[in-house]
Amino acid sequence: MPGLFITFEGGDGSGKSTQSALLAERLRGLGHEVVLAREPGGTELGVEIRHLVQHRRGHVAPRAEALLYAADRAHHVATVVRPALERGAVVVQDRYLDSSIAYQGAGRELDPEEVRDLSLWAAEGLLPDVTFLLDLDPAASRERLGATERVYDRLEEEGGDFPTRVREKYLGLAAAEPERFTVLDAALPAEALADAVAARVLPLLG
Amino acid sequence: MPGLFITFEGGDGSGKSTQSALLAERLRGLGHEVVLAREPGGTELGVEIRHLVQHRRGHVAPRAEALLYAADRAHHVATVVRPALERGAVVVQDRYLDSSIAYQGAGRELDPEEVRDLSLWAAEGLLPDVTFLLDLDPAASRERLGATERVYDRLEEEGGDFPTRVREKYLGLAAAEPERFTVLDAALPAEALADAVAARVLPLLG
Repeated sequence: MPGLFITFEGGDGSGKSTQSALLAERLRGLGHEVVLAREPGGTELGVEIRHLVQHRRGHVAPRAEALLYAADRAHHVATVVRPALERGAVVVQDRYLDSSIAYQGAGRELDPEEVRDLSLWAAEGLLPDVTFLLDLDPAASRERLGATERVYDRLEEEGGDFPTRVREKYLGLAAAEPERFTVLDAALPAEALADAVAARVLPLLG
Repeated sequence: MPGLFITFEGGDGSGKSTQSALLAERLRGLGHEVVLAREPGGTELGVEIRHLVQHRRGHVAPRAEALLYAADRAHHVATVVRPALERGAVVVQDRYLDSSIAYQGAGRELDPEEVRDLSLWAAEGLLPDVTFLLDLDPAASRERLGATERVYDRLEEEGGDFPTRVREKYLGLAAAEPERFTVLDAALPAEALADAVAARVLPLLG
C-alpha cells in the first residue's frame, strides 16, 4: 500500500498520545495527509466496545477480553486504517497489536503467540511500518498518571507485577523485530522525543 | 467432564428455543440438573455484545462481527457452560459454534475453517456431545417468522440467497460430523420432534 503506518506503544503515562499528536502536526506542516488514530475506540463501534471491556464492573473472561479488543481492531483497520493507507496517507496511531500482545498476552497470561495470531487475523495481516516503544519504568508511570485526571480503567487498576510484565513483554517484542521497532526513553523531554521520532520517520517520506 | 452438552442449531424460526425448552423440561422431570442456555447473549456481558452486533445501525466489518460473537462465546463458556458441565449438569443450548460457522462463515463469506478455529479458541476447544440441526426450507422459515413479533436483527434482514447459503452450510457441517449431529425435519409437529430429541438424548444419561 502506498501509505505509511506508524504506531506508538508503551504503558499508560508514557506519552504516546502527546508524541502521536506532535508527529501528526509536524507531518501536516510538511504537506502530508495524516490520519491520527487510536485503539481501542478509534471508531464509533470501537468506542462502544472499549466501554464494554474497560469500564465494566465485574469479571470479563480473559479470552473474551482479547476477542473484544480484536473486534475493535478488525472494524478500525477495515474502515479507517486500510482505506487511509490505500489512498497514500500517513496513519499515526496510539496503540495497535503490540498492546494486545503485551497486555493480554503477558499481562493476562494468555499465550502471546495466540494473541498475536488473533490480532493479525482481525487486521488481515496488517503490520505497522514503524513502531515507537516509549519505554518507562512502571514507578515513573504511576507518578505521572497520579498527577493527571484519571478515568476508571480495569487494566490500569491491575496491581502487583502486572505493569512490569507488560514492560518486559514490550521490550522482548522490540528486540525480536528491531527493524520495525525504535525504543525511546520516555523519561526524556517531549521535544527531544519528538525530534528522535521525526528523525526516524522523515527519511521514509522521501 | 462429567456433564452433557447438547446444542440446537438451525435458521431463525426453526423451533430451536421451543425444542430446547421441551428437552430441558423433560430432563428436569427425570431428576437431572439442566442449564438452559443460549448464544449470543447468554450472560450479562453477552447481552451487551449481542446488542452491539445485532441491533446496531450501520456497517460492522465482517471480521469484527465474527470476533464479537466469539467474545460472547468465550465469556459464556468460561462462566456458564464449563462450570455447569464440571459439576455434572446437562447444558441444553440454543445456538453454539455451528451458528458462527454457518452465519459468519458461509453467510458473510469469511473462511469457515478460520471461523471455526476462532470459535474453538474462544471456547478452549469445547465441542458439544450432541447437536440437533432443525432443518427448514428458508421459505417456510420466513412464513413462520412473519406470523410472530419480530425484533430488528441485522442478520435476519439479509436478503438474497443468504438463508439458503446458511442452510447448505449447516447440512454440510452435519454430514461431516454424523456422530455429533442429528438432522431433524423442522416442519414436523413439535411433539414429534421432542420425542425424536429425547430418543437420542436419554440413552446417553443412562
